[in-house]
Amino acid sequence: MATQKPSIPAGTRDFGPDEMIRRTWIFDTIRGVFRTYGFLPLETPAMENLSTLLGKYGEEGDKLLFRIQNSGEKAALPPEKGLRYDLTVPFARYVVQHRNDITFPFRRYQIQPVWRADRPQKGRYREFYQCDVDIIGSRSLLNEVELIRIVEEVFNRLKINVLLKVNNRKILYGIAETIGHADRMTDLTVAIDKLEKIGLDKVNEELAEKGFSADAVQKLQPILALSGSNREKLAQLAGVLKNSETGMLGIAEVTDILNYTQALGVGLDIELDLSLARGLNYYTGAIFEVKAKDYAIGSICGGGRYDDLTGIFGMPDTSGVGISFGADRIYDVLSGLDLYPKDAMQSTRALFINFGGEAEMVSLQLVNELRAHGIPSEIYPDAAKMKKQMEYANRRGIPYVVLIGENEVVTRTAALKNMTTGEQENVPFGTLIAKFT
Amino acid sequence: MATQKPSIPAGTRDFGPDEMIRRTWIFDTIRGVFRTYGFLPLETPAMENLSTLLGKYGEEGDKLLFRIQNSGEKAALPPEKGLRYDLTVPFARYVVQHRNDITFPFRRYQIQPVWRADRPQKGRYREFYQCDVDIIGSRSLLNEVELIRIVEEVFNRLKINVLLKVNNRKILYGIAETIGHADRMTDLTVAIDKLEKIGLDKVNEELAEKGFSADAVQKLQPILALSGSNREKLAQLAGVLKNSETGMLGIAEVTDILNYTQALGVGLDIELDLSLARGLNYYTGAIFEVKAKDYAIGSICGGGRYDDLTGIFGMPDTSGVGISFGADRIYDVLSGLDLYPKDAMQSTRALFINFGGEAEMVSLQLVNELRAHGIPSEIYPDAAKMKKQMEYANRRGIPYVVLIGENEVVTRTAALKNMTTGEQENVPFGTLIAKFT
Repeated sequence: MATQKPSIPAGTRDFGPDEMIRRTWIFDTIRGVFRTYGFLPLETPAMENLSTLLGKYGEEGDKLLFRIQNSGEKAALPPEKGLRYDLTVPFARYVVQHRNDITFPFRRYQIQPVWRADRPQKGRYREFYQCDVDIIGSRSLLNEVELIRIVEEVFNRLKINVLLKVNNRKILYGIAETIGHADRMTDLTVAIDKLEKIGLDKVNEELAEKGFSADAVQKLQPILALSGSNREKLAQLAGVLKNSETGMLGIAEVTDILNYTQALGVGLDIELDLSLARGLNYYTGAIFEVKAKDYAIGSICGGGRYDDLTGIFGMPDTSGVGISFGADRIYDVLSGLDLYPKDAMQSTRALFINFGGEAEMVSLQLVNELRAHGIPSEIYPDAAKMKKQMEYANRRGIPYVVLIGENEVVTRTAALKNMTTGEQENVPFGTLIAKFT
Repeated sequence: MATQKPSIPAGTRDFGPDEMIRRTWIFDTIRGVFRTYGFLPLETPAMENLSTLLGKYGEEGDKLLFRIQNSGEKAALPPEKGLRYDLTVPFARYVVQHRNDITFPFRRYQIQPVWRADRPQKGRYREFYQCDVDIIGSRSLLNEVELIRIVEEVFNRLKINVLLKVNNRKILYGIAETIGHADRMTDLTVAIDKLEKIGLDKVNEELAEKGFSADAVQKLQPILALSGSNREKLAQLAGVLKNSETGMLGIAEVTDILNYTQALGVGLDIELDLSLARGLNYYTGAIFEVKAKDYAIGSICGGGRYDDLTGIFGMPDTSGVGISFGADRIYDVLSGLDLYPKDAMQSTRALFINFGGEAEMVSLQLVNELRAHGIPSEIYPDAAKMKKQMEYANRRGIPYVVLIGENEVVTRTAALKNMTTGEQENVPFGTLIAKFT
């Protein structure tokens, strides 16, 4: 067979040891919080039936599905399977398929890769991980509060300063309703979103251009002028939306959530942001988005309340709320701010230099003991030249080297070299482990 | 959109919470050992270029590759990407692609799913995980010894009694060479394998039928009659293979490995088994296979030494040795023998019953405290009927329920109910955490 120059498909990535150690730490941290909050793990197959996936992500999404060729005799027929595009639709499919075995409210987390045939570009990949946490089968706002506490806890542990933006689709609908354009929620949020960038006059111009009546634009002014704390904004909103039942419900929901988080001493910075409009196609209540304060990057976490996710699979009236952590962006933030804890980034703590013969055997026994105490350690596999072995330790970033030669075997002491400081000390075999614990 | 009855593709699986908790424990255990032995994590993309995969698994393997339809304009053209079929070829591809950044010997582990378009049947899936650990770039037999110690440690921690079968391709070649059929190694091992089942006479008959000369069959007799301990078998073999340089090298390798494991006090049951012939297409030295002693299932772990894995990608003379743990079968063994540690299988330890109002707020604060101490706990999201909340705890298998109603708020004590025994005690808020640690 001819020699090939190896490569991987565009938009995919290898994660080598350095990246993996960092990524594993992120995933373990997030998973640890999920577990502490009593969420249960779920994994679904990489492949779903195309019928499960199609039509769930809009026309554009359908195009971005990776389709898998049928195998065997059916290879020429249209594909029947696709790679999962997110974790939400497989979750909904799972819930409906296993509804009789599930205890509701069902608190589940899921950390798996997803695939999208997007055009690869900087920061956009065709394979990436999602970390989702959802509670399904309960309308209680305490679930929103749980998710907010999870956001706080995850980013506390990761030491990332964040701002949690919250909004509520019912408020957005209430605004649209109040100004007489109940069907144009999205245009309105786009306008509100532009306020900071282009100013009030331009926003009003744009609204008129888009066909909003002068009366509607007039009615919108108090909302565009909202200011102050979350409480103050909610009070102003309540004045404007008083005739919209849905709008008032949204205000009550946000108020309730803020009351809970305040009473519980949630320290997270929370901001009501009416321009937050992600997922308007499926979110029906709360909308969340998290941004890193000290690093310019898009949202690193987001989610919301959805009242009919499982309806498409024949199980209506099942409300849920969930959020998703963006592992890739969190990785970038932690790298950019150099926030990885040095301790957690270590792999092998000690390399035993291999001097062969009896010294090798003694080293093998000691490396065994270190491992039995949970200290990651290894021995160089050959009695190679000292320089080569030390280079290995250096390139691997192993912090300590243990040297046991003929003399050390006799005296039952090891020479322990700190690779950072270059210092070396003699340590009796019996106290070697204590040096690492 | 019409309602769909949800399902997943044949041969794939959902892993619900109970299975996931067990599987996660298995993966964490294996990963923990890999880390302690100084192995570094690697992840490669689910999709590889088809050119990377094709021709690496034989004709049959090529047919079992899942091919991914090209996206966009190239959809009608032949697929260029396939799902990874194992972790070994992607590892070889990675090593060659990143050869300049890798410190050799490279000790890597990789735990990821693989996909094969096999006909689905009991115990055979189209998506399953592999847990691979390899050392590449060193010919030292100490690496084989490391893997044996890993096997011992993993199955010790999993509490599975195992037998490690070892063989060596060089010995098999030596046997074939000695009887004058150097090209018929595989036929020979098949014959040796049948010895126990069909007896010596039938084996000899079969060999004759397959075209082995009477002289060859005669020369094979001492090998078919091998018996005794590993050392005794090796001694007998050395007598027979004395004129095969390769065969004697194989004997020396096995002897060295056994010497090391003996000197190091490896307690694993190791058996030289000449019928072990897995991976003869690529293994060049040691061959390993692990079987559970107390549960009838195929091999649960296997591997060997390969001297030219990376040659196909343009990097010759890079010897490696690796083993792969079969997570699905290990799962079945642990389930069959009921070996899962009860403690590790728990998710939520305590459910706080929600009585609403001030009691709810007090419960929320206490649930917070438990979580801060790493105790997985939750509160029912609504002040639903007591019966419903207790049922939730029951169905979820939550071992403790904490009841804080109006009275308990006043007395600052919680009623703690043990769901297994039904016993209930009053615990002051201040000592609640101590009940779980």
